[in-house]
Amino acid sequence: MVEPANHRSAHRVVIVGGGFAGLYAAKELGRAPVQVTLIDKRNFHLFQPLLYQVATGTLSPADISSPLRGILSNNRNTQVLMEEVIDLDPERQQVILHQGTLEYDSLIIATGVSHHYFGNDHWQPTAPGLKTVEDALEMRRRIFIAFEAAEKEPDPEKRKAWLTFVIVGGGPTGVELAGAIAELARNTLKRDFRNINTTETQILLLEGLDRILPPYPPELSAKAAEALTDLGVTVRTKTMVTNIDNDVVTARHGDHEEHIAARTVLWAAGVKASVMGKVLEQRTGAQLDRVGRVIVEPDLSLAGYPNIFVIGDLAHYAHQHDKPLPGVAPVAVQQGQYVAKLLKSRLQGKSLAPFRYDDAGSLAVIGQNKAVVMLRSLKLWGPIAWFIWVFAHIYYLIEYDNKLIVMLQWGWNYFTRHRGARLITGEASLGKLEAKTEENYSGSSSNQSPVEV
Amino acid sequence: MVEPANHRSAHRVVIVGGGFAGLYAAKELGRAPVQVTLIDKRNFHLFQPLLYQVATGTLSPADISSPLRGILSNNRNTQVLMEEVIDLDPERQQVILHQGTLEYDSLIIATGVSHHYFGNDHWQPTAPGLKTVEDALEMRRRIFIAFEAAEKEPDPEKRKAWLTFVIVGGGPTGVELAGAIAELARNTLKRDFRNINTTETQILLLEGLDRILPPYPPELSAKAAEALTDLGVTVRTKTMVTNIDNDVVTARHGDHEEHIAARTVLWAAGVKASVMGKVLEQRTGAQLDRVGRVIVEPDLSLAGYPNIFVIGDLAHYAHQHDKPLPGVAPVAVQQGQYVAKLLKSRLQGKSLAPFRYDDAGSLAVIGQNKAVVMLRSLKLWGPIAWFIWVFAHIYYLIEYDNKLIVMLQWGWNYFTRHRGARLITGEASLGKLEAKTEENYSGSSSNQSPVEV
Repeated sequence: MVEPANHRSAHRVVIVGGGFAGLYAAKELGRAPVQVTLIDKRNFHLFQPLLYQVATGTLSPADISSPLRGILSNNRNTQVLMEEVIDLDPERQQVILHQGTLEYDSLIIATGVSHHYFGNDHWQPTAPGLKTVEDALEMRRRIFIAFEAAEKEPDPEKRKAWLTFVIVGGGPTGVELAGAIAELARNTLKRDFRNINTTETQILLLEGLDRILPPYPPELSAKAAEALTDLGVTVRTKTMVTNIDNDVVTARHGDHEEHIAARTVLWAAGVKASVMGKVLEQRTGAQLDRVGRVIVEPDLSLAGYPNIFVIGDLAHYAHQHDKPLPGVAPVAVQQGQYVAKLLKSRLQGKSLAPFRYDDAGSLAVIGQNKAVVMLRSLKLWGPIAWFIWVFAHIYYLIEYDNKLIVMLQWGWNYFTRHRGARLITGEASLGKLEAKTEENYSGSSSNQSPVEV
Repeated sequence: MVEPANHRSAHRVVIVGGGFAGLYAAKELGRAPVQVTLIDKRNFHLFQPLLYQVATGTLSPADISSPLRGILSNNRNTQVLMEEVIDLDPERQQVILHQGTLEYDSLIIATGVSHHYFGNDHWQPTAPGLKTVEDALEMRRRIFIAFEAAEKEPDPEKRKAWLTFVIVGGGPTGVELAGAIAELARNTLKRDFRNINTTETQILLLEGLDRILPPYPPELSAKAAEALTDLGVTVRTKTMVTNIDNDVVTARHGDHEEHIAARTVLWAAGVKASVMGKVLEQRTGAQLDRVGRVIVEPDLSLAGYPNIFVIGDLAHYAHQHDKPLPGVAPVAVQQGQYVAKLLKSRLQGKSLAPFRYDDAGSLAVIGQNKAVVMLRSLKLWGPIAWFIWVFAHIYYLIEYDNKLIVMLQWGWNYFTRHRGARLITGEASLGKLEAKTEENYSGSSSNQSPVEV
């Protein structure tokens, strides 16, 4: 079981990270005369744009994940390694793994970003973010536990806190989460409980800037806010979260400070670069921006290191506009493909023009028949935008796996408003519920069930 | 938010456990003039017969689970409570919950069984069983981690141990797991690795009795063993596991003792009754059998307690044959429906004949086109049996949810031999892999990747 002999002396490309950027770089190199190693901590690629649908019980993790080995199995020049890169030696051209080291001729770093609590990392246990499958399952657990706990809670104040969801951050993820939880409470769960009325659920979306979806045109931000309000979401802009503690969110709007009793707080506010940014800074002197992203050259390489590239969310690319490109999947895909093409050109002794992002548009979904879409200069909202969103996602999903299943799941949900994946899982899932429910309801000696209130 | 007034004085039925037995009792009582409370630790019903397909990466947990509230939402006389019963007071007719108590007029206990290690509970961490969604995800994690670790392991002996899977117990679960892992190794993963040949994977199925699938006719046991052998599974009968330690399984066959180096050991050997059996013994003097199941009267009630019933896997019902009914879904379904009908008859002042199990047959699947089926006196195997197995499962699944998805997933897998859900998830999934891989592979300064061997 050794590599084919003709690859022995081939140009060795090491790709770190199997997200959109790394995966599309690997795919593009699949037929090139190079030896590719793709390293990822996980054994699967995650279609992150739909992670909020796992968090809210519509899809299962496997519906939006594909095993990296499976995607790349036909690329015989490519090896997938489930490992983590912990350091880098650019002089020896080696990445340092947990177990052993790996040499490269060209190195592509695409390790992305994680949550950022703006110096309040102690908020994390109370207000989880949404980046991994485990994050999504934890959000799902909390959301559905909240309704179960409310059903059992006799005290009206406490019940209200269980039925209050605060989402911090009005970007696409926050908007999508708020919309999905609203649909859950208003439609899916409406007939499932006996002691609570889930349509009274309060969902607050807090955004620090003056409108939600700030990168979109103001017109679409307004349409999105309107659609959310229709669904029963309370949208608060110019509102900063100043504390999260003891199931109370403290928010400031101008001089006004508010305390919101909420048992479920979801974080969709900020990102910070993966630790690979720091490693690159230390080992190559790379410049980092405010959130730790690596400032790259026009060809996505590092200054002084033409064989090291940083792509995807971890890259700060500001050569096209006055501000860096956004951390979205299409940028990552195009950067991955660009670097792969650049390497192929170099091997042929050719050069390639600097990277340019071809911005086909942006999409954000609020709920069924509710989305906002910006296609080049075209602004759309409502059912048409929603259908564009659906088909754009299916197109990307279908490209590399049997994600026909997702389309059928959506089709089914569309007509039934059903959500099949609302499982509370994880060890001691009940124990955790109890730990959070401080007070027992009293023993009943009457004719009624003790959970009636 | 109170119960409708007409239920206030209704006969109160408390059902403990939302498996097949408890759920079908609740469904049957949906239109009856009673007040039903279904208590389960989990918020979903699990279609356990397909759990092995989650453990082996074909289906997602949500594909074989349905939220209990969703299934019962149209039964307005029914309340679902996510809780755990920890004790019972038969004199006051109360169940004691973690939080509070609940009164009943009739009580139905259907809390099932868990794994049994025959006095060797310390084997559990090494050899997990398959009863819950978490169990299945843990098995899945171990199975796919094993291939990842083998791919990185330079030592041939250690690599072989990673590629050796021992399944203890030749009942339906053991047979299904062995067949599914064999198909995984021989088909699904065949082209995914570069350093290992997954078709060399060793799968051993160990059974203490003289044939696998002991409750089936010998002819079908032989057909199943043949089909497994065709798939590359080594079937060892009359083989007792005497120790599991340090990644070595010690097995005895007559006087011969064997040590099998295997990193993955899966337990499918024995069950023991849920703790509710012990509670019933203490509080009502109920008789338990050898594995803790509760011996019930011909109408599934407890001797001396005509308003307490035990059904499903927890019940030991020996009034029909000389041996107790098997712990399979059809028995549980029929017992649940029987008790519900009995309660309805009683409320009308009528009686009902003792419970009788209508045994339509048994099915066990080995792999694609490979199954054994016993339909009353008809014995079938091969593709016909497999199609019967598929349609029987789809029929049950579809009855209460959108499990059309499962059919489509299977249809897709059938033609592509693809398995979409082979995700390694769980916190520190990589960390655990490393903890299990004792030795690092050495750093490489050669031209080769360090994981080539």
